[in-house]
Amino acid sequence: MISFTCDYTQGAHPEILRRLAETNLQQEEGYGMDSFSEQARQKIKAATGCSDADVFFLVGGTQTNATVIDALLQRHQGVVAVETGHIAVHEAGAIEATGHKVITLPAHEGRMWACDLTAYLRAFYDDPTWPHMVVPGMVYLSFPTEYGTLYSRQQLADIHNICRQYNLPLFIDGARLGYALASPMADINLPGLASLCDVFYIGGTKVGALCGEAVVFPRGDAPKHFFTLIKQHGALLAKGRLLGIQFDTLFTHDLYLDISRHAIQMAMRLKNAFTARGIELFIDSPTNQQFPILTTAQAEAIGRQVAFEVWQPLPGGRLVTRFATSWATPPEHIDILEHLLDEAGA
Amino acid sequence: MISFTCDYTQGAHPEILRRLAETNLQQEEGYGMDSFSEQARQKIKAATGCSDADVFFLVGGTQTNATVIDALLQRHQGVVAVETGHIAVHEAGAIEATGHKVITLPAHEGRMWACDLTAYLRAFYDDPTWPHMVVPGMVYLSFPTEYGTLYSRQQLADIHNICRQYNLPLFIDGARLGYALASPMADINLPGLASLCDVFYIGGTKVGALCGEAVVFPRGDAPKHFFTLIKQHGALLAKGRLLGIQFDTLFTHDLYLDISRHAIQMAMRLKNAFTARGIELFIDSPTNQQFPILTTAQAEAIGRQVAFEVWQPLPGGRLVTRFATSWATPPEHIDILEHLLDEAGA
Amino acid sequence: MISFTCDYTQGAHPEILRRLAETNLQQEEGYGMDSFSEQARQKIKAATGCSDADVFFLVGGTQTNATVIDALLQRHQGVVAVETGHIAVHEAGAIEATGHKVITLPAHEGRMWACDLTAYLRAFYDDPTWPHMVVPGMVYLSFPTEYGTLYSRQQLADIHNICRQYNLPLFIDGARLGYALASPMADINLPGLASLCDVFYIGGTKVGALCGEAVVFPRGDAPKHFFTLIKQHGALLAKGRLLGIQFDTLFTHDLYLDISRHAIQMAMRLKNAFTARGIELFIDSPTNQQFPILTTAQAEAIGRQVAFEVWQPLPGGRLVTRFATSWATPPEHIDILEHLLDEAGA
Amino acid sequence: MISFTCDYTQGAHPEILRRLAETNLQQEEGYGMDSFSEQARQKIKAATGCSDADVFFLVGGTQTNATVIDALLQRHQGVVAVETGHIAVHEAGAIEATGHKVITLPAHEGRMWACDLTAYLRAFYDDPTWPHMVVPGMVYLSFPTEYGTLYSRQQLADIHNICRQYNLPLFIDGARLGYALASPMADINLPGLASLCDVFYIGGTKVGALCGEAVVFPRGDAPKHFFTLIKQHGALLAKGRLLGIQFDTLFTHDLYLDISRHAIQMAMRLKNAFTARGIELFIDSPTNQQFPILTTAQAEAIGRQVAFEVWQPLPGGRLVTRFATSWATPPEHIDILEHLLDEAGA
Repeated sequence: MISFTCDYTQGAHPEILRRLAETNLQQEEGYGMDSFSEQARQKIKAATGCSDADVFFLVGGTQTNATVIDALLQRHQGVVAVETGHIAVHEAGAIEATGHKVITLPAHEGRMWACDLTAYLRAFYDDPTWPHMVVPGMVYLSFPTEYGTLYSRQQLADIHNICRQYNLPLFIDGARLGYALASPMADINLPGLASLCDVFYIGGTKVGALCGEAVVFPRGDAPKHFFTLIKQHGALLAKGRLLGIQFDTLFTHDLYLDISRHAIQMAMRLKNAFTARGIELFIDSPTNQQFPILTTAQAEAIGRQVAFEVWQPLPGGRLVTRFATSWATPPEHIDILEHLLDEAGA
Repeated sequence: MISFTCDYTQGAHPEILRRLAETNLQQEEGYGMDSFSEQARQKIKAATGCSDADVFFLVGGTQTNATVIDALLQRHQGVVAVETGHIAVHEAGAIEATGHKVITLPAHEGRMWACDLTAYLRAFYDDPTWPHMVVPGMVYLSFPTEYGTLYSRQQLADIHNICRQYNLPLFIDGARLGYALASPMADINLPGLASLCDVFYIGGTKVGALCGEAVVFPRGDAPKHFFTLIKQHGALLAKGRLLGIQFDTLFTHDLYLDISRHAIQMAMRLKNAFTARGIELFIDSPTNQQFPILTTAQAEAIGRQVAFEVWQPLPGGRLVTRFATSWATPPEHIDILEHLLDEAGA
Repeated sequence: MISFTCDYTQGAHPEILRRLAETNLQQEEGYGMDSFSEQARQKIKAATGCSDADVFFLVGGTQTNATVIDALLQRHQGVVAVETGHIAVHEAGAIEATGHKVITLPAHEGRMWACDLTAYLRAFYDDPTWPHMVVPGMVYLSFPTEYGTLYSRQQLADIHNICRQYNLPLFIDGARLGYALASPMADINLPGLASLCDVFYIGGTKVGALCGEAVVFPRGDAPKHFFTLIKQHGALLAKGRLLGIQFDTLFTHDLYLDISRHAIQMAMRLKNAFTARGIELFIDSPTNQQFPILTTAQAEAIGRQVAFEVWQPLPGGRLVTRFATSWATPPEHIDILEHLLDEAGA
Repeated sequence: MISFTCDYTQGAHPEILRRLAETNLQQEEGYGMDSFSEQARQKIKAATGCSDADVFFLVGGTQTNATVIDALLQRHQGVVAVETGHIAVHEAGAIEATGHKVITLPAHEGRMWACDLTAYLRAFYDDPTWPHMVVPGMVYLSFPTEYGTLYSRQQLADIHNICRQYNLPLFIDGARLGYALASPMADINLPGLASLCDVFYIGGTKVGALCGEAVVFPRGDAPKHFFTLIKQHGALLAKGRLLGIQFDTLFTHDLYLDISRHAIQMAMRLKNAFTARGIELFIDSPTNQQFPILTTAQAEAIGRQVAFEVWQPLPGGRLVTRFATSWATPPEHIDILEHLLDEAGA
């Protein structure tokens, strides 16, 4: 059985394991004060082109979202996201648990549209009862989105401009950031992204690490007590070296982007495997998640040897499915899938 | 420079790294549904003698405390702890951030006394205004305590009895559990501990793992939606295999206790190194943390080559210090320390 | 200037003021233990036909919603409401501030449809990722709705049945309950309502009182520590007599329904004043809120002497407006309005 | 049966009831935008000598404390109070429910000592682990304290100076403020108090009103969205006129202080009634709460006709009791008490 269910079915890039072993008995301070974390911070500042950036390493995505959002919002404020945003759907209410509402806008293949954001903000402040409502305090985007889609540089710039006009920090969830930046359809790089938001994170868990997300405040304006808040949120790793070593490795010799490009190559082969056989895509994703629409028969035939996710059923019995590749996907897995598709007569 | 500042200055037991590498490309499900986590759960059930236990793997101590306490308390309830308890002092308000008060009792070398607990509970319910106060909903202990001390079996049984009488779950924070169980002064083993509380956790981070704490509900009565709560608290690791492999390794061939015993042997050598030179101990700790009282001159002399923590200054200029050993402390580090003590004329 | 902006522009029913004065110097216990509150509880039990009911008096609507919802939900749960529900829009995030998500369904003239609720619940539990999502823990309705509309007995029964099937308490916000029950279109009375939900409140603030809402658990199954939770939410009035006297008065000789009927009579005259002059209604409300669609010219002409709310602008320049009557609306105010409408040539 | 159990056994000052009746049918805006609230704000600005002050009216003490503290603290901060402070004991965890720790210092007859505050703050920032702890974010005092005692002007100034040095807002809970200011032992008046803190509230509930507390930010620097926070905390009264009329009345012709003085006169007669009969006082309170130490026989004898509170039992069977007077205490009640004391042979 091979699996395309998600982008975290395997461990870490071997170079990370090698360096963990190599440095294992070196004594280091805890809580991110270790030398590896310090090196990783320097390399991330260089890679983002933000020499003044504040960089913090947290363990996982949900805790990162909750910590950043809770740190930036005041008590009467909420975070604006699209209705398919990870924080709105799949984080078990982690944002609300910190006391804040997720204010939702329509999603367009996972994307927020600048015009929707403007319309919402105008209507909000036009309504004389707004002081009785949750006040928008920041904007949250995923890049790539939960549907694998991208924002263009212009789309990000438009949203960022609105945010600045309304004094709203823009936070970009980059759980799969590498898979966005490595896509041939992306017209933005890491420094470009950093210049178009106020805080973002570089996902490690899904892009080569065992765990870990690097939060970047590009302009070095992290909330003063962000460290204490990380601790309060249970997101401070005692052995910070584990995160430091991983990000130090990922940001050495461009490893992060290199392995991301592999995932995209595999995803494009995957997409082609479906479309060449006349299988429609639910969304034309340029990143590592692909959403073929399978018949029940196809799903069953493939499903005997390949694991994937059923995203949603369609009327008439067809299924939107999700196949994810990653830095670790072997080309042979695509070969097997193609073979199965052929057998299934797709 | 060598360091005794804490028990997490180094990486993981080499066998853990070996198994991470060996299994690295094996595809597994996420969120603790992997085969390694399943094996680890079985081994922990066996080691605790609790075949019905519910076992969950979380990443770190603060998030574990916050998640368990939040899961067990109702909204109007607080958790009872001693004033030196980790949740009362060093977790940046993580418990209060979930809406719950930490109700504090006096600490006796880090321990809660059963008589203090009884006195508090009686006085609480004798006070007719109690419905205007935070109601005690559970009891929290650390074993070993933050001062390295132990509870005897009888002391735990006494506290557990009071808890049962008042219908309060007893939660034991075992961030350093191995170092308690491996102490020659401990009169309790893992199954014994499991029988005297309602939920506890087996600390990995400080005892051989890179990260990870195993929460055990010995009688299999975890709150129904505990998984969702772990997620909400940002404590659910996507690559649960990282935790599964580590605990599977630690609970194979008794590794957890073996490496804990090493730490205790080193701690006893350390203790002896001080007392043999007439250096008084602040607390006579039978576990891996030792608290020698150094003169400023001694502290400076040693401090040139050895890192340790200053716990608190005493009147007259002497310092209570903390030296911690761990599974990874090399005997040579103790040799160096002894040499420095001799040089310092201690 | 006369005002139809809301149903709380005036003080209290004169009989309430008379009884406040009459009992003013009588010494009573605080926190709802006074004899007036006890009498009021008995009268409400009788009026609802629920001799076992638990009845509590709180000060205002938002705090009542937050306290009841927080008391009934577990930490991983959210409350299901329509997107126009008061808790979803106009309570400044009071529910989220207690850590819970408001899960929204479409609104149909302010109403929840049973079929939408079923569809949501089925889809939720059909989605294998549901343990990563906020679990529905209760359902919230307003009766009448924020748009002045009613549920029929059958509609409530349908929703209540679904709730029972999924073990979800049904909570009815009755901030304007009198104005629903007194409507000629209502096919349900107070005991009927009590039998079709698990908890509801009888609004005082908008129906004759200075302040106060009576929370009723018809089957006497209030959460055990509800009193302490009321206190924690800052919703426990020290001089509980103020609430007790008001509800005792309102539930003596059917005063609550009598004054509600007056508001409805005024509202029907108001509605007729608009429709007779060819002014369309945005929603055909059978209760005390009316939503005429005015031209800008009409709005301006009337607005010189009458205050009302602009609910939302329509394309083309027309305005949805809201006119509310109450127990205190003098018939002369309707006369003035009719006169103005005539002058405006409507 | 007559009662000295607390200072809210009776209704409101008759002048308040008269004005409620007089203005009852006047139409006013809600939520504190009414003309009475505006007048009350002006009068409070004048009475406090703070022409720039921001003034808000909330309903009760617990909600006022929770709203102000939640508004002033950042997420990683706690509020410093003495261990007998109302927020630390008798508010059912309302502060923790907003996510903040109450950091407690020793109480000296209910008072905080400046030296304790300094010692705590120095030790906190001297401890290198402080970023792992709840950071002090403001200081809370009660004036008078929960034990009826006062701070002198110098004591308040000392605490305020420390607060300024550490950039901590000082918040004074004035639930019984009138009874402090009217005490012959007070060496401070309302403008004096306003100059020595950053925010305080003027208690209405216990000093002549049915309900209501007036929050004053003397320098007009209320948090920008304080109104929305009041709403979120369920502390915004729809019929704000109820609060406006009450405070307007209390601050007309010095009524607030006049009626407070009556309570103090009664309290001094009460104190004298005990001490003249050789009954010891637990605390020598100069305000409206008195704490005589009664024998069980005395308590029983008096208790047949007079209600009072048992504060705490003393070893040997004696009882610390609390007798409270108020603006409404009739002199005859003191006469009755004296008679009973004589009969009891005290």
